[in-house]
Parts: sequence; structure tokens; C-alpha cells
Amino acid sequence: MPTIVVDVMPKPELLDPQGKAVAGALNRTGHSLVTGVRQGKRFEITVDGPVDEAVRAEIRTIAEEILSNSVIEDVVAIDFGDAELAADETTEA
Amino acid sequence: MPTIVVDVMPKPELLDPQGKAVAGALNRTGHSLVTGVRQGKRFEITVDGPVDEAVRAEIRTIAEEILSNSVIEDVVAIDFGDAELAADETTEA
Repeated sequence: MPTIVVDVMPKPELLDPQGKAVAGALNRTGHSLVTGVRQGKRFEITVDGPVDEAVRAEIRTIAEEILSNSVIEDVVAIDFGDAELAADETTEA
Repeated sequence: MPTIVVDVMPKPELLDPQGKAVAGALNRTGHSLVTGVRQGKRFEITVDGPVDEAVRAEIRTIAEEILSNSVIEDVVAIDFGDAELAADETTEA
């Protein structure tokens, strides 16, 4: 069954407390090369059947409306995997 | 400043309660094409200076030891972004 990857990140202009906490921990443990960290979510969605245009449209809707909170997050990438999709059709929402 | 993306997912053999919850919500809201969801973390790390081999080694260590819990999670990908890195050097840890 095809697996589709959806990446969701906090909006750049918003404070990212989780990311700040990770960056602070990295600096305290001597990893001073790190200047910033942002932490988001990565979803692997398995679907039943071929990834046609209808499935792609439904996944985009799911990503925008359920997997992310559009007030504070952006869907930064949807990777439809080995479906016969041109790389440039990955949605940079 | 270069941005490096680290993707961390729960180990496949482990129960993923978050993923199960999302899959249940999707099915209840009529998205029956979805047969499974796994939810992980996506980190965007900005570093100071060029991404040379030393930086790549340090990022791998950070990913394995700090950004993921090796008992329950896998680092599934590290994307060193536009650094002059051949695609195949992305670590599938």
C-alpha cells in the first residue's frame, strides 16, 4: 500500500517553544554550531489503492484541515512517494 | 545559514497511539481511504557556517542521541539541504 508523507511545521513568524527548548539543550551540551531549531510533525499515511488525482486532493484536504492547525502551522510538504508523480507536483502549501 | 532537516519516526514494530488516534479521527470523518497513520517529528536545524563532513557527523550524533530516543524511535532521514552533498549521502539510519 502506498505511503504518503505529510510534513507540518510551525509558522515561521510564530514563537516555537519546543524548538527553542531543543536548541537550548543542544547549546548546553556543547553543540554550539546549532543556531536554531524548529520542531514540527511528520505523518506517514498509508492509503488503500492507487494514488490518483482524487486521492491526492483528499490528502491535501486532510493535511490542511486535520493534520495541521492553519492558524499556527503550515503544511510544508506532501510527498506522494513512489506514485507516478512528477517531483514538482509535491505541494508546497 | 544552511538548514538541515532531521526526520524521526516511532519504530515500526511499536504501537503508535498518536498515529492510531489520527487514523481513527480520519476514518470517523469519512476519510476511509486511509488505512494507517504514523506520526513522528520533523526538525529543522540551522547551523552556523558551511556543512562540511565534521558538521554532518555532529548532526548525525545529535539526531541519534538527542533528537530521538533510540529505544522507541528511528532517525529515518537527514537532509543536508542545498549543501553540495550527493543525494545518496542522506543517511537512512
